[in-house]
Amino acid sequence: MRTTVGIIGGGPAGLLLARLLHRAGVDCVVLESRSREYVEQRQRAGMLEQGTVHALREAVAANRLDAEGMVHRGIELRYARESHRIDFPSLTGGRTVTIYPQTKIVQDLIALQVADGPPLLFEAEALAVENADSERPVVRFRHGGREETLTCAWVAGCDGFHGVSRAAIPADLSREYAHDHPYAWLGILAEVPPSCEELIYARGERGFALHSMRSPTMSRLYLQVPVGTDPADWPDDRVWDELDARFAIDADWALKRGPVVEKSVTPMRSYVHEPMRHGRLLLAGDAAHIVPPTGAKGLNLAVSDVRLLSRALVRWHSTGETQLIDRYSDVCLARVWQATRFSYDMTKMLHAQPDGDAFDERMQLARLRRITASRHAAAELAANYTGLPLPE
Amino acid sequence: MRTTVGIIGGGPAGLLLARLLHRAGVDCVVLESRSREYVEQRQRAGMLEQGTVHALREAVAANRLDAEGMVHRGIELRYARESHRIDFPSLTGGRTVTIYPQTKIVQDLIALQVADGPPLLFEAEALAVENADSERPVVRFRHGGREETLTCAWVAGCDGFHGVSRAAIPADLSREYAHDHPYAWLGILAEVPPSCEELIYARGERGFALHSMRSPTMSRLYLQVPVGTDPADWPDDRVWDELDARFAIDADWALKRGPVVEKSVTPMRSYVHEPMRHGRLLLAGDAAHIVPPTGAKGLNLAVSDVRLLSRALVRWHSTGETQLIDRYSDVCLARVWQATRFSYDMTKMLHAQPDGDAFDERMQLARLRRITASRHAAAELAANYTGLPLPE
Repeated sequence: MRTTVGIIGGGPAGLLLARLLHRAGVDCVVLESRSREYVEQRQRAGMLEQGTVHALREAVAANRLDAEGMVHRGIELRYARESHRIDFPSLTGGRTVTIYPQTKIVQDLIALQVADGPPLLFEAEALAVENADSERPVVRFRHGGREETLTCAWVAGCDGFHGVSRAAIPADLSREYAHDHPYAWLGILAEVPPSCEELIYARGERGFALHSMRSPTMSRLYLQVPVGTDPADWPDDRVWDELDARFAIDADWALKRGPVVEKSVTPMRSYVHEPMRHGRLLLAGDAAHIVPPTGAKGLNLAVSDVRLLSRALVRWHSTGETQLIDRYSDVCLARVWQATRFSYDMTKMLHAQPDGDAFDERMQLARLRRITASRHAAAELAANYTGLPLPE
Repeated sequence: MRTTVGIIGGGPAGLLLARLLHRAGVDCVVLESRSREYVEQRQRAGMLEQGTVHALREAVAANRLDAEGMVHRGIELRYARESHRIDFPSLTGGRTVTIYPQTKIVQDLIALQVADGPPLLFEAEALAVENADSERPVVRFRHGGREETLTCAWVAGCDGFHGVSRAAIPADLSREYAHDHPYAWLGILAEVPPSCEELIYARGERGFALHSMRSPTMSRLYLQVPVGTDPADWPDDRVWDELDARFAIDADWALKRGPVVEKSVTPMRSYVHEPMRHGRLLLAGDAAHIVPPTGAKGLNLAVSDVRLLSRALVRWHSTGETQLIDRYSDVCLARVWQATRFSYDMTKMLHAQPDGDAFDERMQLARLRRITASRHAAAELAANYTGLPLPE
């Protein structure tokens, strides 16, 4: 097979890139290693920055998002049995975020691409990217039991942290930066309306807890747990009791409980790979960087990478100019490091630190108190949370 | 001896407290363990928040400060061979800081107190505070070869980190919070005009460096060095060469060199003792808390403690009410923790971390870049650096 842009990975990054390229008249092919059913059911993030919503509208892929997305105008911070609200619009000149599950974004983009888009191959497992530093890179992949090749002008590596794209960058040109946080999240998806309208980030001696939701009828809740926690050790009642204890501010407040339909443990990692380009291979999203979920930045970073990448490829396609492609890695990484910083700081501020001491706890409280006392500190949180602007 | 307020320690905290109490008609006595000559020569801090200048003016102790103090409207941040200025007035609604050495503040306050103030005993070494939880606390001290007692209504412990005051608080009522930073500062005082008008905070792979000054003819410069560094291993030329290397941004920039008249190594410690009151003993300044010098908060915190303490004691003296005294510890500590947070963050952001890795370095750069890119982040730095307001 031949195409202009070979896209490895049919998650939100790869699918949105394909949609944006297709609408601009650039040929592409998407290779996804898993089945359509698997990809459409995978539980992932659900908090969209305003820029992410904007990108999906630009791609004319936001019909259901606009109908079902829940616009949030703030978050709640809980600590020391106090509740403090961070109001986004008043701190950011009107910005908001939207709750809409990544799973549905993927479903929406797949439906569009299957209807009228470029080829999207499921169960097409990329094996390697070859000749990335030539004019004609090749993706080798296995599909329907046979090994095939996709010859491209450019390869977009949107295949996540465990994909093959990043591995195609020679080790002597790669720089890796990583930090593993010494705790994990136990997440549940429950068939029960959210217990309050907005997200609650709760810090306490028992550990962090997050109240969020996927829809008006589905709650998504998380508990900080030790690394290596087995979800089987957490029967539903234990999860609810612990959530209650961590969110408690007064006798009146209680979580609504409902059937738990999913339960899993997520590690907390910060990771950045530099550069995000090698020759004609361009990385986007988790293939190049991972953030802990505390700041809800993973999906949004993937989308902003793709916005920059599609602009650069469309420019090249229409004019032959490569300036935007040449700047792609540096421009993305500047933004990636800011999101990495923000995610790291939110994570450190809110989680009980297994290796911390009483001084560290006081510092967490001092940070939280400063955010709720200073308009500048609150505005910094709000600006980063709702998403830093994309460079022009 | 008997007095209303027994003040242990004749540093800036104790002397300013005596001055403020004296002017309000409250009797006090200051006990200082060292000689006048020693105290008047001791090199210490030199950056005064606007509130500190205001307090010295209120105490009518600012004649020389107003004549000689150098008003600074910003600082410079250097990193990655770039220079960025943080402009205080435009970020804080007009606030500035003033360069004036603590040594001179101490000289000014001693001169005033010796001329017309309450008793100030030099070489009067406090040995213990007794009966702090009674109505009549007693300070035992040695003076002129004899042991004496000072019986008070209140005792103000302004005797620094190594003083005896804090030790009078029973261990079971004390909470200590500490963090030792894994590096120290080698500081020099040099007879040479400053190489530029403002302070420069420089971060680099070789370690942190600070350019500051004590007057238009005296420079004060610091280098990050390993814990345990012997100043004897740093001949003057080595110090100047290392400073040059750390401040370098381009070929044109060079430090002015001059005779080094003082050289010493300072450890970097964060420490807070809670509470700051036990019965009729009230702690102020370094007796209760230590910050690393990076944020220049030590002297300023001591002064803000003393402002709150003098208010509280004067109120009690004139009305018999103890509400302000009862709130003193909590009100001070809220501010102390914010200054501790700020000093800690400035320190961590600017120093090469001996136990850090490439990820930590990138995070430092991301923090610095955010401060120079975001008005809110810059304003937060400026607000904390120029000093958070004193509670009403």
